[in-house]
Amino acid sequence: MDLEQRIEKYAELLVVKGCALEQGQELYLNAPVQVVGFVRTLVKKAYEHGASYVTVNWHDGLVNRYTYDNAPLERFEHLPEWSAERANSMARNGAAVLTILSEDPLVMRGADQAKLVARTVAAHVDCKEYYDAIDFGKMRWCIAGAASEQWATRVFPETSPKESVARLWNAVLDASRVDEDPLAAWDKHQSSFAARKQWLNDQHFVALHYTASNGTDLVVGLLDRAHWEGGGQEGADGIYFFPNIPTEEVFTSPDRMHVDGIVYSALPLIHHGAPVEDFWIRFEGGRAIDYGAREGADILKGIIETDENSCRLGECALVPFKSPIRNTGILFYETLFDENASCHLAFGKGFPECYENGYEMSCLELLNAGVNDSATHVDFMIGTPDINIKGIHADGSTTNVFVNGNWAHDVL
Amino acid sequence: MDLEQRIEKYAELLVVKGCALEQGQELYLNAPVQVVGFVRTLVKKAYEHGASYVTVNWHDGLVNRYTYDNAPLERFEHLPEWSAERANSMARNGAAVLTILSEDPLVMRGADQAKLVARTVAAHVDCKEYYDAIDFGKMRWCIAGAASEQWATRVFPETSPKESVARLWNAVLDASRVDEDPLAAWDKHQSSFAARKQWLNDQHFVALHYTASNGTDLVVGLLDRAHWEGGGQEGADGIYFFPNIPTEEVFTSPDRMHVDGIVYSALPLIHHGAPVEDFWIRFEGGRAIDYGAREGADILKGIIETDENSCRLGECALVPFKSPIRNTGILFYETLFDENASCHLAFGKGFPECYENGYEMSCLELLNAGVNDSATHVDFMIGTPDINIKGIHADGSTTNVFVNGNWAHDVL
Repeated sequence: MDLEQRIEKYAELLVVKGCALEQGQELYLNAPVQVVGFVRTLVKKAYEHGASYVTVNWHDGLVNRYTYDNAPLERFEHLPEWSAERANSMARNGAAVLTILSEDPLVMRGADQAKLVARTVAAHVDCKEYYDAIDFGKMRWCIAGAASEQWATRVFPETSPKESVARLWNAVLDASRVDEDPLAAWDKHQSSFAARKQWLNDQHFVALHYTASNGTDLVVGLLDRAHWEGGGQEGADGIYFFPNIPTEEVFTSPDRMHVDGIVYSALPLIHHGAPVEDFWIRFEGGRAIDYGAREGADILKGIIETDENSCRLGECALVPFKSPIRNTGILFYETLFDENASCHLAFGKGFPECYENGYEMSCLELLNAGVNDSATHVDFMIGTPDINIKGIHADGSTTNVFVNGNWAHDVL
Repeated sequence: MDLEQRIEKYAELLVVKGCALEQGQELYLNAPVQVVGFVRTLVKKAYEHGASYVTVNWHDGLVNRYTYDNAPLERFEHLPEWSAERANSMARNGAAVLTILSEDPLVMRGADQAKLVARTVAAHVDCKEYYDAIDFGKMRWCIAGAASEQWATRVFPETSPKESVARLWNAVLDASRVDEDPLAAWDKHQSSFAARKQWLNDQHFVALHYTASNGTDLVVGLLDRAHWEGGGQEGADGIYFFPNIPTEEVFTSPDRMHVDGIVYSALPLIHHGAPVEDFWIRFEGGRAIDYGAREGADILKGIIETDENSCRLGECALVPFKSPIRNTGILFYETLFDENASCHLAFGKGFPECYENGYEMSCLELLNAGVNDSATHVDFMIGTPDINIKGIHADGSTTNVFVNGNWAHDVL
C-alpha cells in the first residue's frame, strides 16, 4: 500500500469510526489550511458516507500568531458573535465534529499568555451550547492528526521538508493503526480496551499510588461511583465513536479533593504552542499548591490559574510504555500523540462519561460529587519507563497496576 | 527586483491603495486556501499598517464543488445565520474588505446552475447590510488576484506547475502595474482616469452606438444625471480606494430601459467557473429578449433569469485594446482581469456612485431613475479589436469615442 492509499483509508477511518458520521448528518470540520489536500479527501469521504453538509472551519497557525501579536487583549475576551453562533449552531443541528491537528507545535512560543488564557475562557463561555453538547455526549467528535510541513520539520528537522512530511505521515498512520483494514483493527483495539477497563473497574480501587525514580510520589484518590473509560465511547444516543485517534489510554476522572504528594514530568508539555519543560507539581487536598519548571513556569502558572478549579485534576490516564506510539520512538510535540505514549494527568475539566449517570447531571452536581469542572483541560505526561503504580483497596491492601512502565497483569 | 519582493510590494498596494486601510480599522479578508503564503503576507502587512483585527474567511474551490455536487438545493437557498452575521457584522464594525481571487476558473464547470443561482440570491438577501454597505460607499473594498497552481495551470497548461505559477504571478503583477514604486504608479494611473472621465462627462452623450465586424450593432442609452467613473472611487466618507486591482475601465450605469440591437461576445464568459462561449444577445427596450451560445447557453439563461431585473444592463464599460493587461497577451479566465482587457457590459445591478447623489438614494429610487437593481452583476466582454463606438449627442450629432478598439481622442 502506498502512502496515498493509506491516507485515504485513514480519512475513511476518521469519518466512519472516529466521529461515526450517520447518513444525512452534518459534519463540522476544523482544519488547518496547511493540509488542504487531506481536508479535501475528508470532505469527499464525508459526502460518500452520506453527509448532508460539510462546514469547514479553516484556520492557519501563522495567521493566528500574527493576530495574537497585534490585536489588543480585549479582542480575545469574547468571541465574535458569528463565531460562537457557528459552533453553537452545529450543536443544535446535531453535527458530528472532526478536528484535524497539523500546526507547528511551537507556533505560539512566546505569545502573550494572558490573551491565550482569555481566549480559552471566552470560547468556553460563548460556545457553551457547543461544549456542553460535546461534554455530555450529545455530539460525536474526533480529534486526529495530519502531517503538515510545519509540524513535520519540527519533528524531523534533519531531513528535507518533503521527506519529513512523508516520515511524519507514516508515523501518524502507524500510531493510528492504519493497516490493510483499519476499521477491523479498531474493532480489535476496542475489544482489548473493554477487557482492560473491566479489570480496573472490578478492582474498585479507592486510590492510585504513583512512584518513580525521578522523585514522583503521588496519591490520586478515586471516586466510588466513577469508572474507567478508554478506546471509544458511547454518545447519549448509544452510538459508538472514537473521540481520539490514536488512543491508547484508559482513564477516569479522579476525586478533585484528594490528590496529595509530588509529581515530576516525563515529557515536555506544549500548551498553545508554548513549551513547559522539566517541571514538577506538589498537590495537597486536590490542589496544586506549588510548582516549578526549567522552562515555561509562566505557561504552567497560566494553566493552573486559568480559573478557580483549573488547579485541580480532571483526568487520570494509564498508558503502557509498550504501544504503537512509543514504538515509533518519536516525540510528536502534540498532546494527542504524546499523551498516548505516557501515563498522564490533566488539570481542569473532568469527564461526565466516567461518572455513574454523569450525562444526566449538571456541571455543578458533578463538581459536588468530586468530578472537577473548569474552562480548561490540559494534559501533562508523567509516565517514565520506570513508573510503578499500585492500586489501593478500601481495606488498605494494594494490587500492582503498573510495574516498570507497563501493565502488571495481562488481562486479555 | 525578484518575484518575492514584487509580491510583497503588491500586498502593500492592496492594503494601502486597494482598500485604503486606516489605523485602527478591521480588515475582512476573503481568501482561498491555495495561496496561504500570500494571505499570510497580506495579514502581516495589514497589521503593519495599523489593522485592529484581521478576520480571514478562508475557502477552497474544490471543497465548494464537492458541496454543490452533494448537498441538496435547499442548503443553497439560505445562508447559515452565522455566515450572514459574519459578513453583516463587518459592515457594522466598519471593516475594509479585501477579496483575493485564485480559484481554478473552471472549478464549477458542470455544477448545478439552480444551486449557484439560489446561492447568489440568498447571499444578496441574507447579507443585505454587508452588500448595502459596499454598494453605497459605506465600506471600502478591493478585489485582486493571486496566482495559485490551480489557476496557473489553467492559463498555462503547457509548462510545469511551478513555472506556470511564476508566469501567472508575473502577469498579475504586470497587469497591476507593480513596478519599483507601485503606490506612485497608481497615483499616476488615477490622474489619467480623471482626464478621461472629464472628457466623457463633458460630452453629455445620450447614447453610445457600438458596431463591429462580428455583427454587433447596439445602442445603449445613457442617463442624463449619470456620469462616468473609473480608477478608484471615493467612499461616502470621502476616502479614496480602488475596488478593483487591476482596473483599466471607465464605466457608467446605462439607462435600464433603453438598450436596443444585437451584441456578440468578444471573449468567453466564465460564470461561477462555468464557461459560456461564442454567444450573442438581442435587446429591446432595455431587456435581453433573445440569446444564443455555442457552449453554455444554460449558464447564460441562469444569469439572465436570476431575478426580475437581471435581464437588463447595470454597467457599460470602455476599455482600450492597448493596455498592460492586453499587452500580457493572456486570457486569464477571470473577469477581474479579462474585463479590463475589453469593452464590456454587465447584466444586473447598477452603480449608485455613477448617479448624482446616488449614495443617498434607495435601490428603488435608483431603479425608478433608470439605474438597474438585481441580486446579480455579471460582466461580459464585447470589445473586439475592430470595435467602433460613436457617442450620440442630444441633437443627434455624433462624436467618435472608440475607433478600431482604442480611444478615438488623446485627452491626456
